[in-house]
Amino acid sequence: MAKPIKKILNDPRRAVDEMLDGLVLASDGRTKRLAVDAIVKSEIPDGKVALLIGGGSGHEPLFHGFIGENMGDGAACGQFFAAPSPHIVYEAAKAVHRGKGILFLYGNYAGDNMNFDIGAEMLADEGVEVRTVRVTDDVAAAPPERMHDRRGIAGDLLMIRVVGAAAAHLDRLDEVERVAKKAMAGLRSMGVAVLAGSIPETGKLTFDLADDEIEIGMGAHGEAGISRQKLGTADEITDQMMEKILADLPFQAGDEVALLINNLGATTMMEMLVVNRRVRQILAERGITVHRSDVGTWVTSQEMAGLSISLMRLDGELKRYLDMPSRSVGYSSLEVK
Amino acid sequence: MAKPIKKILNDPRRAVDEMLDGLVLASDGRTKRLAVDAIVKSEIPDGKVALLIGGGSGHEPLFHGFIGENMGDGAACGQFFAAPSPHIVYEAAKAVHRGKGILFLYGNYAGDNMNFDIGAEMLADEGVEVRTVRVTDDVAAAPPERMHDRRGIAGDLLMIRVVGAAAAHLDRLDEVERVAKKAMAGLRSMGVAVLAGSIPETGKLTFDLADDEIEIGMGAHGEAGISRQKLGTADEITDQMMEKILADLPFQAGDEVALLINNLGATTMMEMLVVNRRVRQILAERGITVHRSDVGTWVTSQEMAGLSISLMRLDGELKRYLDMPSRSVGYSSLEVK
Repeated sequence: MAKPIKKILNDPRRAVDEMLDGLVLASDGRTKRLAVDAIVKSEIPDGKVALLIGGGSGHEPLFHGFIGENMGDGAACGQFFAAPSPHIVYEAAKAVHRGKGILFLYGNYAGDNMNFDIGAEMLADEGVEVRTVRVTDDVAAAPPERMHDRRGIAGDLLMIRVVGAAAAHLDRLDEVERVAKKAMAGLRSMGVAVLAGSIPETGKLTFDLADDEIEIGMGAHGEAGISRQKLGTADEITDQMMEKILADLPFQAGDEVALLINNLGATTMMEMLVVNRRVRQILAERGITVHRSDVGTWVTSQEMAGLSISLMRLDGELKRYLDMPSRSVGYSSLEVK
Repeated sequence: MAKPIKKILNDPRRAVDEMLDGLVLASDGRTKRLAVDAIVKSEIPDGKVALLIGGGSGHEPLFHGFIGENMGDGAACGQFFAAPSPHIVYEAAKAVHRGKGILFLYGNYAGDNMNFDIGAEMLADEGVEVRTVRVTDDVAAAPPERMHDRRGIAGDLLMIRVVGAAAAHLDRLDEVERVAKKAMAGLRSMGVAVLAGSIPETGKLTFDLADDEIEIGMGAHGEAGISRQKLGTADEITDQMMEKILADLPFQAGDEVALLINNLGATTMMEMLVVNRRVRQILAERGITVHRSDVGTWVTSQEMAGLSISLMRLDGELKRYLDMPSRSVGYSSLEVK
């Protein structure tokens, strides 16, 4: 399926650099850029536990669009679908550190793991304490017993919100790490890809699908999913995804959850809302209560068409953090009272 | 350029109906659906001036996704790219009226104008006072002396936010209408289309562009723009659009504006941020200050690729309303203090 790369960019090799400048300008003074490819909050109070997020570019607004109130303090940014270098991680971490240690929160990909770990070692040599929580929400990526091999997808946003609020309100890195691990333990996601996105630098599509095919469980960079199949109805696709998600934790009657339906790029909000209708029917049948929900575009893979469904099991503490107001270029929400 | 329609839907003829159900569910109790295709806030205080918005579906989250705090009280929804019927307008208006009259706010399209006007006449027969302000922000649609012939595009969101906040805080319909007219008088937008979207009911693309072509000034349904040309760089395209927008009002050094960069569907946030960088350079050169800005996906044309730039000239009163918090499924923002 031939599809021209047709994007509104200048030199694709400068796209990440120019995008970061545009992102800082869009924050209306609330963030600033470092000399390296990293964005940090303009004001971070002394004595605050710091939250550093980050990863490859091309998934905007994730990650660098999520710097702000009750969200990340800084983001280390890589080039297209590539991890930030250890040097960028180190510089971003130094810029957000306020004496109380730093939580690194990012998606579980080999390049990110390696470079964030090297950055953490450089900081440890200087006596800066770092803890790491990796987002491993994609149930399609590995079976439950190999949870730590799973990649992170749209659940990143829920993690950044919960952990961002926790890091703004808790005094100790230990406590923020505890909240992050609890949130991660109850988070499950799955995606479906309909059309491929393309990488500006190479002009290549990230994968190939026939005109009538979809892939259930495909990763945000086109990693293999669990089933390549004919395009069915929204209800059929939703049923298939929800069965996998709900079987994995397992979620139970009486559970309260946060629900996130995320557009991977070019999918319309109409499609997502039709899927939301079916997700809600299924959750109601199972006796699972939605405490709050979001339907929108947050974790993308360039102009890939497709969507993902994420559920996070909540207790009183996680609800409290999730209900706090958020403000960033890529996501804002009012306090839920 | 063949492009398959490949959407996650059930029966396309039921898509609007199912989408509205999904939208109400996504509002977590803050909206409800009427027996007709209309969505209204669950709670509207007695004695409030009502704001009714609406238009064709297929542009989600516009309009029906913008019902909520300091935004619309209700939305009358049509089918794909088609105006809501007078009956839907009437029923939605009755459901939001609280004894202080209703402002109708919608994009300037012949079908919408006719049906909202008929609805207004039906209400007038019952003694309900209605005023109408049409959004006519697209500078590509007609020359300045025929401003009233211009169609509405992404400026709708800025209008819904300013007028929504005014309608929540002012006591009289006259006053809300005055604010709406002032906001509209200072609002200008222009779009660029890169790839067509498709209508699920027919499976047809809304227009045809060659693989290396773009159209500057194209409307949200594929209406003709002012220039079909080869794809240039982001800076070239931005310069061309900004020149038209800035010449139209004209905006002057010392002006304060709200800036909105809107994704028409499948354009990446990376592209929008690169454009934002150039827009900010141009505004800084002209001595125009951005009071606040938004970069995101709000007024779409299914999966059309392209974006639009909107500027609203602000005075102290308009700033006050724009800085109030907003909450809806499609747009939320914290108060700016």
